[in-house]
Amino acid sequence: MIPTLEWTEEGVKLLDQLRLPANVEYMLCRDYQDVARGIKDMIIRGAPAIGVAAAMGVALGVKRSQAKTRTELDPEFDRICATIAGTRPTAVNLFWAVERMRRAYLAAGDDMAQIKERLEREAKQVYAEDIAINQAMGRHGALLMPSEGRVLTHCNAGALATAGYGTALGVIRAAVEMGKRIEVFADETRPYLQGARLTAWELQQDGIPTTVITDNMAGHFLRNGGIRAVVVGADRIARNGDVANKVGTYSVAVLAKENNVPFYVAAPISTLDLTLATGELIPIEQRSPREVTHIKDVQITPEAIGVANPAFDVTPNRYVTAIITEHGVARAPYEESLPRLAGAPKGVGGAGGAD
Amino acid sequence: MIPTLEWTEEGVKLLDQLRLPANVEYMLCRDYQDVARGIKDMIIRGAPAIGVAAAMGVALGVKRSQAKTRTELDPEFDRICATIAGTRPTAVNLFWAVERMRRAYLAAGDDMAQIKERLEREAKQVYAEDIAINQAMGRHGALLMPSEGRVLTHCNAGALATAGYGTALGVIRAAVEMGKRIEVFADETRPYLQGARLTAWELQQDGIPTTVITDNMAGHFLRNGGIRAVVVGADRIARNGDVANKVGTYSVAVLAKENNVPFYVAAPISTLDLTLATGELIPIEQRSPREVTHIKDVQITPEAIGVANPAFDVTPNRYVTAIITEHGVARAPYEESLPRLAGAPKGVGGAGGAD
Repeated sequence: MIPTLEWTEEGVKLLDQLRLPANVEYMLCRDYQDVARGIKDMIIRGAPAIGVAAAMGVALGVKRSQAKTRTELDPEFDRICATIAGTRPTAVNLFWAVERMRRAYLAAGDDMAQIKERLEREAKQVYAEDIAINQAMGRHGALLMPSEGRVLTHCNAGALATAGYGTALGVIRAAVEMGKRIEVFADETRPYLQGARLTAWELQQDGIPTTVITDNMAGHFLRNGGIRAVVVGADRIARNGDVANKVGTYSVAVLAKENNVPFYVAAPISTLDLTLATGELIPIEQRSPREVTHIKDVQITPEAIGVANPAFDVTPNRYVTAIITEHGVARAPYEESLPRLAGAPKGVGGAGGAD
Repeated sequence: MIPTLEWTEEGVKLLDQLRLPANVEYMLCRDYQDVARGIKDMIIRGAPAIGVAAAMGVALGVKRSQAKTRTELDPEFDRICATIAGTRPTAVNLFWAVERMRRAYLAAGDDMAQIKERLEREAKQVYAEDIAINQAMGRHGALLMPSEGRVLTHCNAGALATAGYGTALGVIRAAVEMGKRIEVFADETRPYLQGARLTAWELQQDGIPTTVITDNMAGHFLRNGGIRAVVVGADRIARNGDVANKVGTYSVAVLAKENNVPFYVAAPISTLDLTLATGELIPIEQRSPREVTHIKDVQITPEAIGVANPAFDVTPNRYVTAIITEHGVARAPYEESLPRLAGAPKGVGGAGGAD
């Protein structure tokens, strides 16, 4: 699999997801501002991948710093963290990763070389843990997948949304590796087309049979198309199990329930925001109308028409059959199961993961 | 309002809906094969407009015939009807219009000039009735609209889908003419983008405030966006009130019900197919994968990926709050109310309408 992002000597390399699947190209971020721009402009996207990129962005900012002392570096470090954290509001992994880098910074002593080395090591650790966490999630989630048949997914919660392997698509990959014969139905996921462009591309590379449908066909196929399960990722999960994820997830969840199809969310513990009682408190990012009015550079709407473009929606917990994490599977009542899982002993090396 | 289609001396003119909203251009159909191609390629679309175009296509085929006698014309007439009827399988108005033209043909005597004149008159009648029927539907439906607030629609069931005024958008127009302050949320309606391109364009021309959303946002706005009603058109309605309409309609209906938002279908009596007991019997047209893989000429998916493209879906009657026709409003149980309305005295001049 082609890596989603990479720490290199020249800087952080991001696979340019705006250009997939037609072009496989990397953007080289030479400083932390480049990384922030890459996150904001969705060169890289997906809550876990954003977390890893954020950790690398903070490490890169410190590495490039001209500061001679920690006292000189302190305000610069705050600026770096604020810039990275200010890119996108919904995915909690972003804030989780920045906080984790801040803790590493606070523990790093006074020697500039040691601080830089410590933060670089932490970012690489976040990256490696993310892959391990996805694989653990895959092992838990694969057991919930049907032994054969169609599974629907929305957006891209795959290798491209993480350091590798994927959350929802990691569950599917693990099920296929177990010998389950799964065929994926991928919602195209307007406006950004993560399903048609990214999920289709990465599953095709793995040889997993995939059918792209427009978002408005999901209901039809949940009713008539033999779909046996839905599995999606998440950008933030409240304490009660309400799930913020790519806009359209709520619709799929309601349609799945209406047709007695189980609806699973695969997300690392770092996606939990136990400080929020319910999903109503999760901030929803509003993105540019141009994502709706144009596809690539082709304008599809009349000039000056009104447009709404919320990037996420919230799925109330009553539609969620189970939440798959690296620590195991949570079921309702989530207010009990999620805090329990979040505090459970870690089997994959670290306090949560950056995905 | 710019006419959707027109009978002229040179032939049938179809407003080219593939080129809207960027270009307002007509395709001139010089013979019935051109009309058939226009329907098949979706130069013109929308069940009622297809019905009117079909009637004009049959009349044009007869007008252009070189046959000298009725005996010579008979097999040619069958060919014309079969070609027109073979263009699209789901909208029943197409078959209804061809049948109506066949009845006119059978009643037209033996004189060639009189046959041609009779069929031209019938096609013009179908056109005029369609507008009158839409206006009658608007009067009935307007009473069901909220006095102010947001109304969601899917696809284009507007002036562009009919001879003029529209079915679902006719209801909205009539409500606005009554002084109701309605703002429309228009699903963009992938893959063909009838909402983003056509509904947005025609409502903008009328000065009705319109917000385009991607299809997967409909659930979010039905839950949180203050939407007070949904109104859509139909391509075929079974005797029990199951509704075939543009793919995605089923999803919207389920999401409306889940959020206690009334879901209305506006369709002329000619859309009823009382010969079908349930919607499961309605044939669903499968269209080219290219409509999903490409937007205009831009490819969005990887090469050789699987694609499904059903053009319609079926909404079971339990999600339908009411069906608005030119004869009045039907409510459950539809098996009783629909046949009653279909047989009711006509207030708008004719046995059903061509929309």
